[in-house]
Amino acid sequence: MIVLFTDFGSCDPYVGQVHAVLAREAPDVTVIDLLHAVPNYDIRAAAYLLPAYVDGFPSGSVFLGVVDPGVGGSRRPVMVNASDRWFVGPDNGIFEILARRAAEVNCYEIRWRPRQLSASFHGRDLFAPVAAMLAVKNTPAHSRCSLTPPSGPRWPDDLPQIVYVDHYGNAVTGIRTSQLEGKRRLEIKGRSLEYARTFNAAPPGRAFWYGNANGLVEISVNRGNAADVLGLEVGDEIAIKE
Amino acid sequence: MIVLFTDFGSCDPYVGQVHAVLAREAPDVTVIDLLHAVPNYDIRAAAYLLPAYVDGFPSGSVFLGVVDPGVGGSRRPVMVNASDRWFVGPDNGIFEILARRAAEVNCYEIRWRPRQLSASFHGRDLFAPVAAMLAVKNTPAHSRCSLTPPSGPRWPDDLPQIVYVDHYGNAVTGIRTSQLEGKRRLEIKGRSLEYARTFNAAPPGRAFWYGNANGLVEISVNRGNAADVLGLEVGDEIAIKE
Amino acid sequence: MIVLFTDFGSCDPYVGQVHAVLAREAPDVTVIDLLHAVPNYDIRAAAYLLPAYVDGFPSGSVFLGVVDPGVGGSRRPVMVNASDRWFVGPDNGIFEILARRAAEVNCYEIRWRPRQLSASFHGRDLFAPVAAMLAVKNTPAHSRCSLTPPSGPRWPDDLPQIVYVDHYGNAVTGIRTSQLEGKRRLEIKGRSLEYARTFNAAPPGRAFWYGNANGLVEISVNRGNAADVLGLEVGDEIAIKE
Repeated sequence: MIVLFTDFGSCDPYVGQVHAVLAREAPDVTVIDLLHAVPNYDIRAAAYLLPAYVDGFPSGSVFLGVVDPGVGGSRRPVMVNASDRWFVGPDNGIFEILARRAAEVNCYEIRWRPRQLSASFHGRDLFAPVAAMLAVKNTPAHSRCSLTPPSGPRWPDDLPQIVYVDHYGNAVTGIRTSQLEGKRRLEIKGRSLEYARTFNAAPPGRAFWYGNANGLVEISVNRGNAADVLGLEVGDEIAIKE
Repeated sequence: MIVLFTDFGSCDPYVGQVHAVLAREAPDVTVIDLLHAVPNYDIRAAAYLLPAYVDGFPSGSVFLGVVDPGVGGSRRPVMVNASDRWFVGPDNGIFEILARRAAEVNCYEIRWRPRQLSASFHGRDLFAPVAAMLAVKNTPAHSRCSLTPPSGPRWPDDLPQIVYVDHYGNAVTGIRTSQLEGKRRLEIKGRSLEYARTFNAAPPGRAFWYGNANGLVEISVNRGNAADVLGLEVGDEIAIKE
Repeated sequence: MIVLFTDFGSCDPYVGQVHAVLAREAPDVTVIDLLHAVPNYDIRAAAYLLPAYVDGFPSGSVFLGVVDPGVGGSRRPVMVNASDRWFVGPDNGIFEILARRAAEVNCYEIRWRPRQLSASFHGRDLFAPVAAMLAVKNTPAHSRCSLTPPSGPRWPDDLPQIVYVDHYGNAVTGIRTSQLEGKRRLEIKGRSLEYARTFNAAPPGRAFWYGNANGLVEISVNRGNAADVLGLEVGDEIAIKE
């Protein structure tokens, strides 16, 4: 199975072009469009979102993880083996958190190159063919490497920020629910939020937080739009209170 | 064939997660994304939209119909056999109109439970595996039941309201065109609308109503955006005039 | 392979209904959703966009190209063979540029009709079944014809206008990069734009133009939104400067 996780957008032609490459190179492999609405160019948001979804896909799955504002520059293309799955994409930090949490990680720089490589669409020209090869148990030319740490201060193990806002207005954070054992209260933008087990357990219209179905802390409003009600967007900071 | 009809959104990761479950449990079954943009939490709009699409899918199809604001609460999961198709989802009214119009309906509460059931995503954890089982002719544990009628006054047979606005700005109503035999004029928001056979038959820029390709009355503007021109949104009331 | 290129929208039910027809009529054929966000009713934008994507799909592919504001009127349905691929859709100009650039073009009016033909959704009822037939090497009833030239002045070989704005805010033009050999500067809305090889080669926040991965001139901002920064929309004119 090949799983697509990108900021290519769900409505533009880019995803279809990637599918065409995969259909040509790995015609019998199932391809799942997991997410093409990663916040544009936001490598860090992608890095904290991606691990939340991995367990839902079978061992041996190949993830195409592409948020790649540096395409055509000097960042390396990599393929990473972790948690018995492959991750293919740019060496820009997108696999940083995933690798940090895995028991064993093997990272390789991709040496293989296609005959035609555009300057701006390595997702289609380079990463998709590599994902297809791995999915059909071919191995593209590669050499062992280490992931390049993102520049600046070390990223935290959990990110107390909004990393995704869905179409209901639910705001997903980079904090694993498992890290909040016993905590009941969060604060965001000066507003205090109580815990609820699920939407139904909160009064309609009241904002709350809960542990979402992918193991991340999420801010929601029962039958409402939390992002609108609280004015939330990607990057907003959260404080954990007792 | 499994047909998805939800308010999960076309751009969020939820649909991909459902596809992953279906690929695992029913790998050889075709899956069609019919609609993931049912108005959020709007069970009634869903109930009047869904029947319009059923005939376009073959006998034996399994519909996953999930608009489920009460997820994690006490509403029952059901599987409904009607018109030689299966419908799987919450017992919250979403199948009310469909069942009312069918010659014969058999309704079952789903007793089967997955090993892991999240509090907020039964579409993925419970309804998708059940749809997969039905599609491969397995039968999950179940017991006969009746659909719970929606609370409040009985829903009408046709709903004189906007139930969906598409990306062109066409406003779909909950009224079957077949019920307007001989009628020529509708009124919405104080504006009178004449009938036209199709877009091309109306002058560009003028709002009109017609019977859409799925048997529902729809309000449109030739080469324009009816929702913008008339200020329409889901829930707006329509009056039928001679 | 069947390739879908329409203005049906990525979130509405229309694409799923087309997929259902293709699954019934050509169950073993791969279907790719290339683009459903062609600007609404914009036949000319579609005509200049479509040829940019054709080479990425294998010989023998069947393109369903439907932007069809005249549906239900007198425009003819056609199937066009060009560049060893089929193109199926309305004879309204959508295939004009594609045909003009091909070495050999054979055009046929589609005489076949389905048992049920709605007035407003020929994409589903007529063009999809024809595309499926061609994909499985059946030939629907047809007669030789010529494409009808679009009304008004002859369309230029390259269109110096914005024809598409993607979700990053990149603005795609109807000009092939190959036609700008040696040019370095464009002007749009009174703003002068310099050339850059790719995003990474331009300073963040500065608008530039480059040759995109599909051979078209595109206006972008590194890690920014060119459409917002420059106030661009489909139809805006571009001037080519030395």
